[in-house]
Amino acid sequence: MTFSTRINEAITRTGSVTCVGLDPRKAQLPAPIRDAVSSDTPDAWAAAYTQFCCEIVDVVKEMVPCVKPQAAFFEQLGPAGMVSLGQVIRYAADAGLIVITDGKRNDIGSTATAYADAYLGSTASVAAAGGDPATASPWGGDALTVSPYLGRDSLEPFVEVCDQRAAGIFVLVKTSNPGGGYLQDLQCDGRTVYRSVADLVSELNAGRLDADGYGPIGAVVGATYPEQLVELRAAMPHSILLVPGFGAQGGAAKDVKAALDASGRGAVINSSRGIIFAHARKEFAGTFGDARWQDAVRAATAEMNEQLRA
Amino acid sequence: MTFSTRINEAITRTGSVTCVGLDPRKAQLPAPIRDAVSSDTPDAWAAAYTQFCCEIVDVVKEMVPCVKPQAAFFEQLGPAGMVSLGQVIRYAADAGLIVITDGKRNDIGSTATAYADAYLGSTASVAAAGGDPATASPWGGDALTVSPYLGRDSLEPFVEVCDQRAAGIFVLVKTSNPGGGYLQDLQCDGRTVYRSVADLVSELNAGRLDADGYGPIGAVVGATYPEQLVELRAAMPHSILLVPGFGAQGGAAKDVKAALDASGRGAVINSSRGIIFAHARKEFAGTFGDARWQDAVRAATAEMNEQLRA
Repeated sequence: MTFSTRINEAITRTGSVTCVGLDPRKAQLPAPIRDAVSSDTPDAWAAAYTQFCCEIVDVVKEMVPCVKPQAAFFEQLGPAGMVSLGQVIRYAADAGLIVITDGKRNDIGSTATAYADAYLGSTASVAAAGGDPATASPWGGDALTVSPYLGRDSLEPFVEVCDQRAAGIFVLVKTSNPGGGYLQDLQCDGRTVYRSVADLVSELNAGRLDADGYGPIGAVVGATYPEQLVELRAAMPHSILLVPGFGAQGGAAKDVKAALDASGRGAVINSSRGIIFAHARKEFAGTFGDARWQDAVRAATAEMNEQLRA
Repeated sequence: MTFSTRINEAITRTGSVTCVGLDPRKAQLPAPIRDAVSSDTPDAWAAAYTQFCCEIVDVVKEMVPCVKPQAAFFEQLGPAGMVSLGQVIRYAADAGLIVITDGKRNDIGSTATAYADAYLGSTASVAAAGGDPATASPWGGDALTVSPYLGRDSLEPFVEVCDQRAAGIFVLVKTSNPGGGYLQDLQCDGRTVYRSVADLVSELNAGRLDADGYGPIGAVVGATYPEQLVELRAAMPHSILLVPGFGAQGGAAKDVKAALDASGRGAVINSSRGIIFAHARKEFAGTFGDARWQDAVRAATAEMNEQLRA
């Protein structure tokens, strides 16, 4: 079973297209987690990040198809943070969630192969491909976000490992930030740069489609550019879309609907702060607050699922 | 003292523009390092990577201005590899080398800030800026390679941290791989994509120049495209250039000369495999072989320094 089939089946099983972004930040951790940090050291904070993220996994594991740990926040703690990232990825994968590591990695040739080998393929994906779980990636996740700036030959090593381990990648096509258009919207021979990347993504999926017509090469398309989301859904009919920018960044449910196919699958919509720091949102602070932050996470996830089902 | 001043002074002090790329790979380690790996576990390999890279640092620390650890190869070992990466960065920085972490990182907004906080600024650079060494980055390096696909607002958080910690970044402009032109060479309104990035790099350096006219925002320009190297040296007069692709990838000394300024500074030329695995090169295998691999590293570094001085 390929990555795209696994993610679409997880969407059907949970009735949700929500992806929970795991973006731990020291200052925003709920008080019970923050107060338990015994010393202001990377190891102590890393342990707090692990506990925080694993408790979120416990809350959401039956409610959503996937989680997306953001590597940057773990890397911010130094090597200790990367140990935490490894623990979080494995805990989430063991809980049955599909894990998309958000690292926006890439490099040339054999260095791209090293990143692919590092981050692509969980024991579950390798088993789903009929392989030996011992050949799963050392970090243990299913998929990775990847930057396209280095061109086609920098993506091909990832595609090869996707084939071997039933893994997936999400290529940055149109990002959700205000300045994303600086390069992405440039017009080159009548075609935007982001459209060139989208066409490359489609080419790479050719010959790799599952029974529903999806391939392992997904794409990141921000919720904050609804028109481009419509254009890119049509341009990449074979890609699972990973849609950031919902909630805190301003994307609305009506905007992201265009990312889904007729059966309500084919895309996952990410929310990070809106879910994991829900205890601080005014809708939930009064009811739950810091003390019952896990209940705030549950309520925010349920709310997002409802908004996206409507 | 800013990052650009530090790197130019290190070039003058060592009489070298060589950057030694630290790209450890299991299969290519010299026999004495490989044979000492007691078990086929990430921890054992990570310890071997640390020993290998730190011994290289011992050999080259008076011979070259800087080293460039490639994050991908450490990440390939999982979390244990990242612990090794942290040890290697710190060891090299403590030895007086400028450390450029090659991670090709980037993300949007506050996530870019997390990467910048993670990787920018050694205790030496912070001290050179008159700051408290305790505010150095947790990884402890001086500079980071950064991808520009997410646009101007994704680079600005890095620039801010460069200012605070006398650190530097190297923005991918024109990469050395055969397929790098897929996006980078697209023509948009009479200007290539790589030239748009170069112009952005120049804008970001404005107001940040040292006495020699260099700023903290460097650029990656491959040695494998000599004409573009000439064009981009002229387009980014204020950037330290990081030039990969010398040696194993085919770039020659005559090609990279164009990267240097009239005083023979303003750029560093990277070689990875040609130096760190010199024991396997036919010129050195007979004389030194695996047993004296450190001497092969020394000879290959001296040879490259000579070629670049000629």
